[in-house]
Amino acid sequence: MTTGVRRRMGVEERRQQLIGVALELFSQRSPDEVSIDEIASAAGISRPLVYHYFPGKLSLYEAALKRAAEDLACRFGESHEGPLGARLLRVMGRFFDFVDEHGPGFSALMRGGPAVGSSTTNALVDSVRQAAYDQIIAHLEIKDPPVRLELIVRSWISLAESTALIWLDGRRIPRAELESQLVHDFGALAAVSAAYDEEMGALVRRMLEDEPADGPFADLVARLIALAS
Amino acid sequence: MTTGVRRRMGVEERRQQLIGVALELFSQRSPDEVSIDEIASAAGISRPLVYHYFPGKLSLYEAALKRAAEDLACRFGESHEGPLGARLLRVMGRFFDFVDEHGPGFSALMRGGPAVGSSTTNALVDSVRQAAYDQIIAHLEIKDPPVRLELIVRSWISLAESTALIWLDGRRIPRAELESQLVHDFGALAAVSAAYDEEMGALVRRMLEDEPADGPFADLVARLIALAS
Repeated sequence: MTTGVRRRMGVEERRQQLIGVALELFSQRSPDEVSIDEIASAAGISRPLVYHYFPGKLSLYEAALKRAAEDLACRFGESHEGPLGARLLRVMGRFFDFVDEHGPGFSALMRGGPAVGSSTTNALVDSVRQAAYDQIIAHLEIKDPPVRLELIVRSWISLAESTALIWLDGRRIPRAELESQLVHDFGALAAVSAAYDEEMGALVRRMLEDEPADGPFADLVARLIALAS
Repeated sequence: MTTGVRRRMGVEERRQQLIGVALELFSQRSPDEVSIDEIASAAGISRPLVYHYFPGKLSLYEAALKRAAEDLACRFGESHEGPLGARLLRVMGRFFDFVDEHGPGFSALMRGGPAVGSSTTNALVDSVRQAAYDQIIAHLEIKDPPVRLELIVRSWISLAESTALIWLDGRRIPRAELESQLVHDFGALAAVSAAYDEEMGALVRRMLEDEPADGPFADLVARLIALAS
């Protein structure tokens, strides 16, 4: 079914191709700076044809963001086997892969800019945060998370976002250090809560029970004890 | 200089009055839900007269946000006397006062909504974050903050923001607990970094040196040691 050199694409196929092309451009530069002309040219079609598939740049941006959000949420998937610290560290690696691949677009979105901040984009960002939250709660194997655990998980997610944004701004700290630091930060925030709340104390003790002596949490505790003495 | 019952206001005085009235309304409900008609009525003037002073709702919103931002930045001011933990705890009290006073407006702004997210509002939010950062660095008495300290202070500021937002969503944890938890979180994040970086280790030791035995940091360390054993 080819007509000459270029095969004619179906509507959905063309839409998906445009989303892919747009996502790549929106990842490399701030979305404000990417024009429909550029997207058309990168996709090898005319500007009016882009508008045939997407009414405007915002709807194409939202479609690209939706694909990126689904991609990121998939990367949170992790086997429930083995120690928690090691699982979280692997997820942090994939999170920084994503941030690395989509740097300028990720910054522009998370810092908020003129082209972003529609209710659709906000809902997409929130859906990724919720996916991260659900994954962590599932790994902790907790049915009804107490409110103090919810606070820690959600505020740690915002810490991970801001750490990634600060990393993108000059990459002055190696990303491997930050991936590991975020795992430690999670343990530290949980420990602070556990120090003042019995329910959280029991939960954190259970969480650490299966951690190996050479895992990130045990390593942090040993170093902190050395630091305190 | 009164003309009848109502004194005629000067231009700047009227602008300031409108900003105050608008800020109060924007603080009580999401700014999206506040109309120019309501602002006019609360200020006791006509709708066209509001437009005489401000070209549109966005410019009035930005002016109100500017005043709120200056107010919040002022609350970060704190004497450089006494232990650091106690200073930070007092600032956290004033930060939660602010969040409490401006709840719905603060949420709408920080979560991003259709009426917010202009480059002016983003710049105002960033200026408050920068003021918070500058204050903390000044209290730590550090001329050239190492990049790892910058990361901790900036990411802790985002942790404070997200903690306040989660608190506003139902107020399920007493604010006094969160104010104190954020001080502990700062210590914990600094300790994690200190555990893996010598420069940060020296800095944290110096930071803790003047902390009293009954201060928030010493209390946390004692509780964590009890938890670990």
